[in-house]
Amino acid sequence: MIKIVILGGGNVAFHLINEFLKKKSVKIIQLYNRSIEKIKPFEVFAPITNNLTDLKDADVYIIAVSDNHIAEISQQLHFKDKLVVHTSGAHAIEELKSNSHKGVFYPLQTFSKNKKIDFSTTPICIEATDKKSLKILEKLAKSVSEKTYEINSTQRKSLHVAAVFVNNFVNHLFTVGKDICDKNNIPFEILLPIIHETAQKIETINPKEAQTGPAIRQDNKTIDQHLAILTNNQQEIYKLLTNSIIKHHGKKL
Amino acid sequence: MIKIVILGGGNVAFHLINEFLKKKSVKIIQLYNRSIEKIKPFEVFAPITNNLTDLKDADVYIIAVSDNHIAEISQQLHFKDKLVVHTSGAHAIEELKSNSHKGVFYPLQTFSKNKKIDFSTTPICIEATDKKSLKILEKLAKSVSEKTYEINSTQRKSLHVAAVFVNNFVNHLFTVGKDICDKNNIPFEILLPIIHETAQKIETINPKEAQTGPAIRQDNKTIDQHLAILTNNQQEIYKLLTNSIIKHHGKKL
Repeated sequence: MIKIVILGGGNVAFHLINEFLKKKSVKIIQLYNRSIEKIKPFEVFAPITNNLTDLKDADVYIIAVSDNHIAEISQQLHFKDKLVVHTSGAHAIEELKSNSHKGVFYPLQTFSKNKKIDFSTTPICIEATDKKSLKILEKLAKSVSEKTYEINSTQRKSLHVAAVFVNNFVNHLFTVGKDICDKNNIPFEILLPIIHETAQKIETINPKEAQTGPAIRQDNKTIDQHLAILTNNQQEIYKLLTNSIIKHHGKKL
Repeated sequence: MIKIVILGGGNVAFHLINEFLKKKSVKIIQLYNRSIEKIKPFEVFAPITNNLTDLKDADVYIIAVSDNHIAEISQQLHFKDKLVVHTSGAHAIEELKSNSHKGVFYPLQTFSKNKKIDFSTTPICIEATDKKSLKILEKLAKSVSEKTYEINSTQRKSLHVAAVFVNNFVNHLFTVGKDICDKNNIPFEILLPIIHETAQKIETINPKEAQTGPAIRQDNKTIDQHLAILTNNQQEIYKLLTNSIIKHHGKKL
C-alpha cells in the first residue's frame, strides 16, 4: 500500500482526494491546505492540517496547489528518503525545491468542481528523478488510470501548450459560436452534435485530413459573406484561422 | 409516402441517399449526378441519370450539390407544383432559381465519406416558401432525425458561420495540437480524453463559464513560457486567442 499526503484545496486536489479515497492500494495519511476550511469536508476520511511542520510520515507527498506556490511549499518539505511530487503541466521537475526524491504526477484533464471526471481514462503523465520513485509513481498512476505515460519536463511543457490549444482555445471558439447563436436567436444546442462529431472524428482520422470548410476549399465568396456578419473581434479570429488553414495545407490566398 | 429525387454525388448526397433508402415513409424515385459514374453504386436501389431533362415525377427534388452549382441546376428545374430544396447552410432560399415551391433542408453535421453519421441526432434545419412545403419538409426531416428546427435564411447564414468556428476552426486547433505533439515525440492520443471532455462539458455548462487556462487567469508567466516554444504561426494564433479570452471576460492585458 502506498501512503500519501495530498497538499492543496483546489479542483485538482479535490478530484485526486476523491479518487484515491476509493482505492484500496493507496492510503491518504493526511491532507494539508493553507486555509483549513477548504478541506474540512474531508476530515471524516483523513486527518487534516494547515501547518506544514505537522506533516505525517508518508511515501509520497503530492503538491496539488496553484503553479506559483509549488516552489514555496516544496522548499519546506525536507524528507530525505521520501518522494515529493507536483501535479503541474506547466512546470519542470526542478520547480520542486525540497531535498527529497522528486517527481511529477500530471493528470492531463480539465477539472471543474461540479463535474465528475472519468479518471480511468484520464492520462497520467509521470516523471521522477530516480528509478525507484518512477516505479512508485507508476503504481500510483495505475491505481487510478489505465493510461500512464512517462513524459519528461521538456515534453510536458509542449504537451501543456498543446492542451491549451485543444482545450482552452477550443472552448473559447465554442463561446464565440454561442455568441453568434445568441445574437440571432438560434438555440446553441443545434451545434452540439457537430461539436461532438468534430471531437470524435479525430479518434480515427488525423485532424489534418479531417479538415473541411470554406478555408480549405478556398471558397472566397463564402469567406467574404461570413466576414460581413461578424464583429471586429470575430473577424480577426476568422481571418487568422482561415489563413492558417490555407498555409497549413500548402496553399496561399 | 414522400417521393424524392436526390441530385448530387458528394458527401452530403451520399449520406442522404443511404439514410433515405432505409426509410419506409420516403421513396427515392431517381438519382441525378452530372458525372454518372459517381452514383453508379446506387443503381441497384434507384434509377440514375445524368440528364436534367429526364427527371421523373416526385414530390421533392433535393439539390445536394456544391454551393456554386445550386443556382445553375435549380434554374433548369421547372416543376410548378413541386418542391425544390437545397441542402446548403451558406445560401439563402433565394439561391434556388426554379419556378417551383422552394425550401431548404440543411443537415448541420460534418460529413466524411468514410465515416458513418448518426442521423437520428443530426439537427435538420428547414425553411420553405409556403406552409404546405414546410409541412412536407418537416415530415421528411422527422423521418431521419429527432431534431428538426425551423431556421430562416438570415439565421442559417449565422448558424453556418458559427459552425465554421466550432467545427472547422476547432479542427484546425486540433491539427496545431498534433503538430506540437509530433515535434516533441509525444503521442497525440494523450490529448484525446481532454478533447472529448472539453466537447462534453458544454452540454451542461455554458462555454463562457467553462473557460479555464492561463489566459483567463492572466497568468503571464505561463503565457510567456508557452510563446517561447511555439512557431511564428502558432504564436500568432496563441496571442490572438489569449487576448480574445481576456477581452471576453472583461479584462485587459
